[in-house]
Amino acid sequence: MEKLLVIKIGGNVVDDEECLATFLQDFASLPYAKILVHGGGVLATKMAADLGISQDIIDGRRITDAATLKVVTMVYGGYVNKQIVSGLQAYNCNAAGFTGADGNLITAHKRINASINYGFVGDVDAVNIEFLQMLLRHQIVPVIAPVTHDGKGQLLNTNADTIAQEIALSLSKCFNTSLVYCFEKPGVLQNVLDESSVIKKINRQSFAKLKEDGIIHSGMLPKLDNAFVALQKGVNSVVIGKAKDIKLLIEKKAGTSVVHE
Amino acid sequence: MEKLLVIKIGGNVVDDEECLATFLQDFASLPYAKILVHGGGVLATKMAADLGISQDIIDGRRITDAATLKVVTMVYGGYVNKQIVSGLQAYNCNAAGFTGADGNLITAHKRINASINYGFVGDVDAVNIEFLQMLLRHQIVPVIAPVTHDGKGQLLNTNADTIAQEIALSLSKCFNTSLVYCFEKPGVLQNVLDESSVIKKINRQSFAKLKEDGIIHSGMLPKLDNAFVALQKGVNSVVIGKAKDIKLLIEKKAGTSVVHE
Repeated sequence: MEKLLVIKIGGNVVDDEECLATFLQDFASLPYAKILVHGGGVLATKMAADLGISQDIIDGRRITDAATLKVVTMVYGGYVNKQIVSGLQAYNCNAAGFTGADGNLITAHKRINASINYGFVGDVDAVNIEFLQMLLRHQIVPVIAPVTHDGKGQLLNTNADTIAQEIALSLSKCFNTSLVYCFEKPGVLQNVLDESSVIKKINRQSFAKLKEDGIIHSGMLPKLDNAFVALQKGVNSVVIGKAKDIKLLIEKKAGTSVVHE
Repeated sequence: MEKLLVIKIGGNVVDDEECLATFLQDFASLPYAKILVHGGGVLATKMAADLGISQDIIDGRRITDAATLKVVTMVYGGYVNKQIVSGLQAYNCNAAGFTGADGNLITAHKRINASINYGFVGDVDAVNIEFLQMLLRHQIVPVIAPVTHDGKGQLLNTNADTIAQEIALSLSKCFNTSLVYCFEKPGVLQNVLDESSVIKKINRQSFAKLKEDGIIHSGMLPKLDNAFVALQKGVNSVVIGKAKDIKLLIEKKAGTSVVHE
């Protein structure tokens, strides 16, 4: 099967112009079929503040009222997405940007939660792999914003990590798929204060031990839980590290590799 | 050759929720290959005002500084485009939204003008017809925002009428192409105060006379000049009328048809 990279970059890359430009140049040069999924948290928060829209975040999830959904659609689906696409085009990478509504790419339903009303937050139902396959077959590089739709005209705010995972899972049936999460640290750290303490490899067994010892906690827990789900469902490899190391990450020469055994 | 509709809607449709919903339902039902080009002027102006960005418009063209370009990209490329796409999906029309940067769809250059600095305004250089053909072949309906790029990483604000025309021209080589401009009036009017005075047909000769008599003037002049250019360069028909009449417009049972002879 052909190799495919599904790479997720977060707000820390998107917010930093220089960091983003370097990343896009590196990404453009990667010699594989590839898909980029982006977040853009700080910019949306800043825009909401500029517009006088108050923001609530519970358990790392933005509570998305109608005004916030509009901001998210504008900032993620518009500004950030098109900055990335035009940036990649400048490096001769034929990118095209999408939300989940475009080409019916990602359908989702509004999250149902007995205790918290998340508003217009969507949990993914399905990924349209035929559409992605068509784009990849024509050497187009999809750049995906974290906005989905319910198929009934409602856009929904969806976590970018989840979108990257769902896309990688869906395409693992027809590609040898690697999922790469770029974040602010060089990998999962043994000592959170020491950036040189990257744990090179984590399997289920060592993950259990790292959790028990309190070395992995809070935000990193769902990331790794999701990584193991991805591996179990057919994704070939999951790597976590810094965006500036992207070329090394895909060769597993940097970052943390999450593996079955 | 297969029939293709290139339909342009302006701010007056986009700004009015009910009018837009009706239009999208009608558009979704049109039984031809089709492309939708949209503007969204008032929303961008409103958003710029909300963000405290002052706006200059000279000769109907927005002067686009960096802050305004960001607003235009967010509002046109993000909010308006994705509202339309998700709305069409709800009517089982497999739409996908694009700016000129996506798939390298429309390249442009920054306008050069000795007397006025238009800022980040782009004049179209080329339309990537292979990309549009691929989408149409896969029954995807392109929805195009009036933002282009220079191929070097710079997004540019480009007039939606011009984009519709350039796309229709480019595709007239491989499709029997009709160009439809939807605007706030039911067509070109003999008497601007009487909506029932629609001129059903305008050819070069009658256009010259209507200009001479001062019946056609100001904003309608460039629209019609452009329509004759489109016809001359291979577009099969140009129709001007109201969005709510779209089904009649494409059958030439409403609006003004601009014809060669």
